[in-house]
Amino acid sequence: MGDTRNAAGWIEGKNPNLEVLSEVPLVLGTPTRLMAGHRIIDKHSLFVRNIQDLPEGHTLEPRPIEGWEIELTGLIDPSQLTIQGEELLAMDQVEHEMVLQCSGNGRSMYDGIPGTPWTQGGVANVLFSGVPLAAVLEKHGVRVDPQVQYVTGEGKDLPMGRELPDMEHSLPVWDVLDRSILALKLNGEDLPGIHGGPVRLVTPGLFGTMQLKWLSRLRFETAESPTFYHADEYRIPLSPVKPGERFRFTLENSRPTWYIRLMSYILEPESGASLSAGPVVVSGVAYNDGTARLESVLVSADGGRNWQSARFDVPDSPFAWYQWTTQVDLGPGTHELWARAIDELGRSQPLDGSIYWNPNGYEWTGVFKTEVTVS
Amino acid sequence: MGDTRNAAGWIEGKNPNLEVLSEVPLVLGTPTRLMAGHRIIDKHSLFVRNIQDLPEGHTLEPRPIEGWEIELTGLIDPSQLTIQGEELLAMDQVEHEMVLQCSGNGRSMYDGIPGTPWTQGGVANVLFSGVPLAAVLEKHGVRVDPQVQYVTGEGKDLPMGRELPDMEHSLPVWDVLDRSILALKLNGEDLPGIHGGPVRLVTPGLFGTMQLKWLSRLRFETAESPTFYHADEYRIPLSPVKPGERFRFTLENSRPTWYIRLMSYILEPESGASLSAGPVVVSGVAYNDGTARLESVLVSADGGRNWQSARFDVPDSPFAWYQWTTQVDLGPGTHELWARAIDELGRSQPLDGSIYWNPNGYEWTGVFKTEVTVS
Repeated sequence: MGDTRNAAGWIEGKNPNLEVLSEVPLVLGTPTRLMAGHRIIDKHSLFVRNIQDLPEGHTLEPRPIEGWEIELTGLIDPSQLTIQGEELLAMDQVEHEMVLQCSGNGRSMYDGIPGTPWTQGGVANVLFSGVPLAAVLEKHGVRVDPQVQYVTGEGKDLPMGRELPDMEHSLPVWDVLDRSILALKLNGEDLPGIHGGPVRLVTPGLFGTMQLKWLSRLRFETAESPTFYHADEYRIPLSPVKPGERFRFTLENSRPTWYIRLMSYILEPESGASLSAGPVVVSGVAYNDGTARLESVLVSADGGRNWQSARFDVPDSPFAWYQWTTQVDLGPGTHELWARAIDELGRSQPLDGSIYWNPNGYEWTGVFKTEVTVS
Repeated sequence: MGDTRNAAGWIEGKNPNLEVLSEVPLVLGTPTRLMAGHRIIDKHSLFVRNIQDLPEGHTLEPRPIEGWEIELTGLIDPSQLTIQGEELLAMDQVEHEMVLQCSGNGRSMYDGIPGTPWTQGGVANVLFSGVPLAAVLEKHGVRVDPQVQYVTGEGKDLPMGRELPDMEHSLPVWDVLDRSILALKLNGEDLPGIHGGPVRLVTPGLFGTMQLKWLSRLRFETAESPTFYHADEYRIPLSPVKPGERFRFTLENSRPTWYIRLMSYILEPESGASLSAGPVVVSGVAYNDGTARLESVLVSADGGRNWQSARFDVPDSPFAWYQWTTQVDLGPGTHELWARAIDELGRSQPLDGSIYWNPNGYEWTGVFKTEVTVS
């Protein structure tokens, strides 16, 4: 542990709860059976998706914060500053209950897109806690130039091969100053190495790729990062693209996969389940980007002719997932169960999520459909 | 007729189908009973909302096109050109079936907003036909500079009082070049004076205020009009505003009321109707901005616990309204009937439309609610 680059081997040895989803190292999904009924997903079943690697991070144990430094630079006054990881320990901590979701989750529902074949394993609800970046800036008397539009974060992880570009992401400065934390804990425990410990930049409401692990530098800038993973990958065309069509991404014709899309999942019954006729409990989770509450989760057992509202409690955190449940009566035969959330802004899930087809298969938001057999 | 500025008087004398909604001249609503069951709204029941006045336009008869001129100017080559109204008659005509909706329709559902107290009288489905502006440009060999972002339209109408600003609107150039027509006909007849005849700039998918009557000039420009009705009125703040909060509009902190919002209306039974217990036909219309088809119209008779899908045919024109119908069983008592459309992009109507509260009460898009009594 800790000294091998074979992360899949590490996971297989150490973490039997996780499903190895591809031959790419560090792509491991949260199993549906361990999501159902769980408000918080334990680190032992939390999905892993690392674009690049930090060998000493191959562990569910924490990594030492002593000596960890984070550089702040760019259009700030003073123009350069180094934060010591240890100083964060003594500051006031805040906790966010929040959805952590890979923007490629649901990719397998799009037609013809290569890449990690996520269905629903790339999402979880967790607790991150740490120090608000705004408080760190205030403590050090840092003034951010009003021209700054983006905060670009870098981690200590490195590309998985020679001549691969280093990964970084630019986040909207207003979100970062509003609520980003330098996260030190996951679910109340010191942040595991594999999830970005000792320090991860966490911004509730944004997709997982924007939650930067092993944080080493923050740049306050007027422009977005032009690097591959931010300017070519992890982007959505601004205008619709026909399925299968090629698209050459630029910073101007596309946007980053920033904000989590509205989504609901049926977790019980599981897809393919065999059930007895009669009343069947249908339950799952739903969430959005946290900018508005969910208003309804509707469930249909007859292909959308009729929908019934599921019951749920509104979580305290706007960024947490909603656990919902309802009951349907099913007769013998094969049935599709559908779920669709609607939020207070009137945003819902399209019946055919492929209407948002995009070349890299991000941000799936279609009505969730699952099939069960009743006898 | 034609020589008085008292338009309400004209309407009351000539057009008993229309409802006078306020003391302001030229605010007249389409009656619900004349919408229900009608695919196309006749000119005799089509709502009227004129911000300013052209006295000779006080008529449902056509106005002569002979001698009517439209000036094209701005960043075009040649830089100035005059179109003769008569030349349009000889060109190929296209027809758009489309929703015409005042952006203030539904204003009465917002709290505390002055202005025309529209509920649902400011909408109709009509046929406009005329000559595509793109065809006029092509005929005259006009080249539009790629820097042009907006086309600002002016009409021959004048302010209703001294020292009031003249009204004009700027439209996105891509919509104008894509589908704007110089409309000469309404529902197959020469365009009535009161509805902008002889020539109106009509762009399907945009709100009524952007459908410029008595068109006299089009300016191709890089910036939006800074005039009152475009830069202060008929705008929506870019960020949410708390109900009742004051807001100082600028071109930078707001956007024009351009694109029609998703909406559905129950037209039968009418609000306040007394019905007999048993099956009740519920029907109405629904529409959006034409960028995606409607996927569902859902109706609830139990406060949103259960929703059923209404039946409808998809109209040929993406900009037309959908006529939908369904049947619910109602027992004795008072019932609220709710309607909510969802389009193929997953856009729906919020349960509480006030979430989009804005200082001038535009773009109401809430779930439609109506009350009936059953005995």
